[in-house]
Amino acid sequence: MTDDLPNPALLPAGLADLLPPEAEREAALVEAMMAVFAAHGYERVKPPLLEFEDSLLAGSGAAVAEQTFRLMDPVSQRMMGLRADTTPQVARIAATRLGREARPLRLCYAGQVLRVRGTQLAPERQLPQAGVELIGGAAPAADAEVATVAVEALAVIGVTEVSLDVTLPTMVPALLEAAGATSPLRQRLARALDRKDSAAVAALVQDQGGVLAVLPGLMAAAGPADGALAALEEAALPPAARAIAENAAAVLAAIRASAPGLRITLDPVEFRGFRYHTGVAFTLYGPGMSGELARGGRYLSQNEEPATGMTLYPDAVLRAAPATEPKPRLFLPLGADGAAFRAQGFATVAALAPEDTPQRLRCTHELKDGAAVPVMSKD
Amino acid sequence: MTDDLPNPALLPAGLADLLPPEAEREAALVEAMMAVFAAHGYERVKPPLLEFEDSLLAGSGAAVAEQTFRLMDPVSQRMMGLRADTTPQVARIAATRLGREARPLRLCYAGQVLRVRGTQLAPERQLPQAGVELIGGAAPAADAEVATVAVEALAVIGVTEVSLDVTLPTMVPALLEAAGATSPLRQRLARALDRKDSAAVAALVQDQGGVLAVLPGLMAAAGPADGALAALEEAALPPAARAIAENAAAVLAAIRASAPGLRITLDPVEFRGFRYHTGVAFTLYGPGMSGELARGGRYLSQNEEPATGMTLYPDAVLRAAPATEPKPRLFLPLGADGAAFRAQGFATVAALAPEDTPQRLRCTHELKDGAAVPVMSKD
Repeated sequence: MTDDLPNPALLPAGLADLLPPEAEREAALVEAMMAVFAAHGYERVKPPLLEFEDSLLAGSGAAVAEQTFRLMDPVSQRMMGLRADTTPQVARIAATRLGREARPLRLCYAGQVLRVRGTQLAPERQLPQAGVELIGGAAPAADAEVATVAVEALAVIGVTEVSLDVTLPTMVPALLEAAGATSPLRQRLARALDRKDSAAVAALVQDQGGVLAVLPGLMAAAGPADGALAALEEAALPPAARAIAENAAAVLAAIRASAPGLRITLDPVEFRGFRYHTGVAFTLYGPGMSGELARGGRYLSQNEEPATGMTLYPDAVLRAAPATEPKPRLFLPLGADGAAFRAQGFATVAALAPEDTPQRLRCTHELKDGAAVPVMSKD
Repeated sequence: MTDDLPNPALLPAGLADLLPPEAEREAALVEAMMAVFAAHGYERVKPPLLEFEDSLLAGSGAAVAEQTFRLMDPVSQRMMGLRADTTPQVARIAATRLGREARPLRLCYAGQVLRVRGTQLAPERQLPQAGVELIGGAAPAADAEVATVAVEALAVIGVTEVSLDVTLPTMVPALLEAAGATSPLRQRLARALDRKDSAAVAALVQDQGGVLAVLPGLMAAAGPADGALAALEEAALPPAARAIAENAAAVLAAIRASAPGLRITLDPVEFRGFRYHTGVAFTLYGPGMSGELARGGRYLSQNEEPATGMTLYPDAVLRAAPATEPKPRLFLPLGADGAAFRAQGFATVAALAPEDTPQRLRCTHELKDGAAVPVMSKD
């Protein structure tokens, strides 16, 4: 039967209702992850859903400008945007309301973001986000902390088999810069790297020699972090690229120290989709086919403050997390008091009329001689 | 965290950042209230922030149509609205996705709503809501349940000195109808009742005699519920008004039975601000000057299903709730492991660079010989 499927005429594409028991599970796992952030000293902020577009689209917000719903504010006659990402708002708070707090500032948030259009792979236009931002600290230990705190938040809700993909979005630009590559060559290389076309990359750098000769080797080294780090160590890198490699090695060493069992991969030449990152960038993948659970990395916050953070996607986390047992539902006959049973962990469901029965109210338990006993099937 | 006032140029009027520690407190009290709803068998739903305006503004949604931000959906080319109230969305879910579930259906929700304009008294344009809806039950016990569950939710977070104001928004219309009052008289009476102008009401009904003669007495009876119920009992009411009074008496008796100590007032002729209520309507007031903490009452859900519910306002609840002690913050020197202290309830704050000190990171505790000890003031 299809009648239980959402009627596409009811809700706009990419906007959906979360029903029982998923809505409860999502809320519970968001708060469990936020509790992990709080335990590591991240303090919660709650920016509004709507704000002026010029502050919303500043800095890292420029990356989601095309995805931002815009509205005229009837009060100020200025344009507002519905946030498509929370990081730019946290950057604004850090720079203004909390501008005089000592650094580093550790902030966390949970809420909804909205997007003008979904994609074929990700049709959702409303997405929950929960994340951490560490603002005003440039140490590799800061990047390692946001990554391992995200891993711990997932572990707390039972998502343990995760894999951390690390990329260095500034590496390829640094190599191209050092090689003095022409704009057409840059574009061709970017396209070839983007397609992971190693033959094309090799052909393009063959005539160049010098700095770019490292590219095919770095491309081939993408994979488990230890191998990729060794390849970076051995490669003949110009100074800016060497600094990027050394920073990556320091971040990974710090992650290893606090999460020794974590599966980590490193792709030194990947740079897609990390439009505002200025250092390491992270993607956390869940077990099996559950996909991306979080993204993050180093960026510049407002006023050029160094910052790093991770955003978790609770909708994806919900799909990856083990199912939880809902509370047993205890039927309360007309006038019965359920306080003692609620204290024991039951959800009590009170009869309000004679036709209310345990079966009708989907109860798992009923009262017999003052005790909660499982409801017998009527078949 | 700082006493800096928000810069009015930064955010649109009525839209604000919630900062530490308030954002954390608000989230905690919302989840504590939702846990009370769940314990009474209310199952959580999460409708999207945006949906087509025709479904958003149907039924009880019509009451907030003027307050609803509208957007063109670039995918369907249809108009969407940003929800200004959650009840109409829950009504849609109950009638469609959950249309075949047995009644009564108990649903709860927590989220944000947005409004086009604030008022002078309530300038906020983004408001959190958390509420319960009981759909498909017409018994007075249902109205009593939503009211007492809301009172219990407030008690759990320490807001105990509340007062429940009950009104009967259908009483005056029923009396006017029975009296066959002319349209000009109805308008004049509505205005006089609205202003609580008892002299004007008395003058208007003087010439009428009959049914409307009860109005001055009912108006004077507004106050503690027992007195108001007695006045209703004694008044010469036409049948429709008598049924409203008897229903009110049954609802109040059921509330008394499960919340004996609750302060209850009843105003039989108040009808302002309850534009879609079809039976009793509730307002929960907090202690002192904390104002309205919740509103609700009986209404017709989609497909004319009888329904009742309560919406709590977590921003107001936050102001009424007792302050909670934030977690102690324990400074972790470079490389120290804080897991054992987090398990004890500390928020650990790791040093990431040599300049990070307990004072700088606003820590209350530091490690001395492996133990957490209070940070000594440097003064």
